[in-house]
Amino acid sequence: MTQEKPTVVLLTADGVPEPADLAEVRDLTDVRVCTAGTLADTLPGAEILLVWDIFSGALSDAWHAADSLRWIHVAAAGVDALLFDELRESDVLVTNARGVFDGPIAEYVLACVLAHDKRLHETEAFQRAGQWRHRETIRVAGRRALVVGTGGIGRATARLLRAVGMDVRGAGRRERDDDEDFGHVVDSADLAAHLREVDHLVMVAPLTEATRGMLGAPELAALPDGAHVINVGRGELVDQDALTAELATGRLSAHLDVVVVEPLPVGDPLWTLEGAHISPHMSGDVEGWRDTLSAQFLTHLRTWLGGDEPAPAVDKGRGYVSG
Amino acid sequence: MTQEKPTVVLLTADGVPEPADLAEVRDLTDVRVCTAGTLADTLPGAEILLVWDIFSGALSDAWHAADSLRWIHVAAAGVDALLFDELRESDVLVTNARGVFDGPIAEYVLACVLAHDKRLHETEAFQRAGQWRHRETIRVAGRRALVVGTGGIGRATARLLRAVGMDVRGAGRRERDDDEDFGHVVDSADLAAHLREVDHLVMVAPLTEATRGMLGAPELAALPDGAHVINVGRGELVDQDALTAELATGRLSAHLDVVVVEPLPVGDPLWTLEGAHISPHMSGDVEGWRDTLSAQFLTHLRTWLGGDEPAPAVDKGRGYVSG
Repeated sequence: MTQEKPTVVLLTADGVPEPADLAEVRDLTDVRVCTAGTLADTLPGAEILLVWDIFSGALSDAWHAADSLRWIHVAAAGVDALLFDELRESDVLVTNARGVFDGPIAEYVLACVLAHDKRLHETEAFQRAGQWRHRETIRVAGRRALVVGTGGIGRATARLLRAVGMDVRGAGRRERDDDEDFGHVVDSADLAAHLREVDHLVMVAPLTEATRGMLGAPELAALPDGAHVINVGRGELVDQDALTAELATGRLSAHLDVVVVEPLPVGDPLWTLEGAHISPHMSGDVEGWRDTLSAQFLTHLRTWLGGDEPAPAVDKGRGYVSG
Repeated sequence: MTQEKPTVVLLTADGVPEPADLAEVRDLTDVRVCTAGTLADTLPGAEILLVWDIFSGALSDAWHAADSLRWIHVAAAGVDALLFDELRESDVLVTNARGVFDGPIAEYVLACVLAHDKRLHETEAFQRAGQWRHRETIRVAGRRALVVGTGGIGRATARLLRAVGMDVRGAGRRERDDDEDFGHVVDSADLAAHLREVDHLVMVAPLTEATRGMLGAPELAALPDGAHVINVGRGELVDQDALTAELATGRLSAHLDVVVVEPLPVGDPLWTLEGAHISPHMSGDVEGWRDTLSAQFLTHLRTWLGGDEPAPAVDKGRGYVSG
């Protein structure tokens, strides 16, 4: 009995390198490569969609053409740009790059914590000015971090911050006292109540209707003077205007790897505010990251072709891999 | 029976805050405060010298006046600026700020490692230029560090770098394979032989005749392209001209918290070389550091007044606390 090869649509964008394992994928399936503009023409008859261009939201527009789609793999941690109601209500399986970015982003967060407490950016500014200016720094051991988001990346971050002696808690959907990585997890729906004793606030929650704007003006106001915000999740988790206003006063500072509009528009005050440290959505992208994403898809594909569902699935109602 | 209070000479400098515990020290002893210029006039009859101005080398000039001196406490980790032959040959006990800087400097080293591997300085430069430029970073877990110096600071550094998953070895006076903090320790007298597979080289050895210039042109040449040098020990551990030449080619980069002449002279190329990150001898100076130093002296003083010797003593022959 000969079985027909399933079709994989590879959704990418101009200038994005192709998956390192594409030859193997081609051996196992019929691959059609497209970009957002040609997705609707490419989807009919395809069972599998690999969203390789991680910022694409093109599927919603092309959904009418997805007549055979059964599985979508998104080569990214966040699936917020992908999801829409018809997909949520369908039986199509969605998987993501779970695990790939956990360690890299945790390290990036620790880098931001240490840069802040050891005043590295200020020291560089003095060097540029030719000034030898001794200052005291802050002991990181014992500093208080709140990690908002208790998925894989948040957990890896909590473990790493604990490993250097920080006092770490989590914020998630369910308050609890016995979490293996966080110990205490506070209710993220009541975030403002838990910010008064936070030195480093780490935003790493998935973007959903429940988390959009969760760090707004009231929450920012609840942070103590000198607190440091790190956003490695999604720009829309934060009320960016409110944060910009706090940074402008000098009361808070921030490392923002994500912003509401990317690239950050020319002229945005975040480019030049002294306490705003902007990076271009790169916190998890360590050397070899695309190869790791490619290998993860290939592993999942083999599982699929063997008749099993790749796991874990994204909970499309919640907008992330749950539990 | 009334016992006379011993005299403590407090050697400080203009603009340096006095010890927080000075009132308690005055209760226990007769305190005479002086600076380098008045040390010789102040020393006669004094049993104890507290070197509170950590960069002072004044004692050598005033040694003839040290007619009753039995104990010197240096409120610093390195005693290289204090030691001279007559002191080495005398019975005067020397103690230092052992332990105070271990954790803070270890954190500073980790900050430098992460700033390098996560390309934070480059990201700041792109931000200043208004450029949104995605780049890949380096996974810190698995990176290879060699910590040159196996005293308390080196050990704390090794433990912290290991805690974030780095592959750490030490370099010290005695090669061994069973060190509790380093695992493998290579012979620092043969440093060049052990540098070919080092990503981060951490200089934290005491400055002695054996270690002066230990990182010279041959050693620097042995480091692989892209290696990163962190010096939190003493500037003279490194052949600064040779390092400057390597930085100028872009082959290596460095975080230097210490340099040969401090402050770094105006016009020195290290001020402006892209791969040279200069900080003004502050790696261990966390908020409260002077209070910690003061409390350490007070504890030692009480031990002394109780008839015991504060410990551990500096091995004056070697130039550091040994073993």
